[in-house]
Amino acid sequence: MSEIAQTPKPPYYAVIFTSLRTEGDHGYGAMADRMLALAAQQEGFLGIESAREGLGITVSYWDSLEAIRNWKQHSEHQEAQQLGRSTWYSAFRVRITKVEREYGA
Amino acid sequence: MSEIAQTPKPPYYAVIFTSLRTEGDHGYGAMADRMLALAAQQEGFLGIESAREGLGITVSYWDSLEAIRNWKQHSEHQEAQQLGRSTWYSAFRVRITKVEREYGA
Repeated sequence: MSEIAQTPKPPYYAVIFTSLRTEGDHGYGAMADRMLALAAQQEGFLGIESAREGLGITVSYWDSLEAIRNWKQHSEHQEAQQLGRSTWYSAFRVRITKVEREYGA
Repeated sequence: MSEIAQTPKPPYYAVIFTSLRTEGDHGYGAMADRMLALAAQQEGFLGIESAREGLGITVSYWDSLEAIRNWKQHSEHQEAQQLGRSTWYSAFRVRITKVEREYGA
């Protein structure tokens, strides 16, 4: 991810996922790639932005809270979440937000 | 910034700032440090998270839309915004969001 997501006119939703990794890969890289590809196939997906520099920040954009719920409950994503909690992340935070205004250049 | 922000129980607000840099520093590093320190002094500031990996993502957290407006209009920050547009960023996006739900581990 090294592009700014092209999102529609607000309102829409953003999930801000911030995390700190444990040491070592333990299958993380492959799963992260798979989750990015899978998220992009979900109904209501609008875009994603991601960067890690010690702290990792991934922001995914969605057209509804229902789309966010469905993605959270996707079976492959559930497996990834479980491995995230048990193995890959020493700490993480998920914030569900409504985008009210947007501008840029 | 390599910590997850310790934010209060929602609702509160998040500003998602994503950017792509131009080549060279041109005073960016010093100004970025100054803006982080200055933001943290503003009324209503709750925390900040930042990472750059090609794409830069900075998420700042605030207790109200008024606090976000005040910070946007702060004179030193206005100068930084102008240099951002003219010199430091090839593209950027600012998204003002309301945090509705939060969880983590």
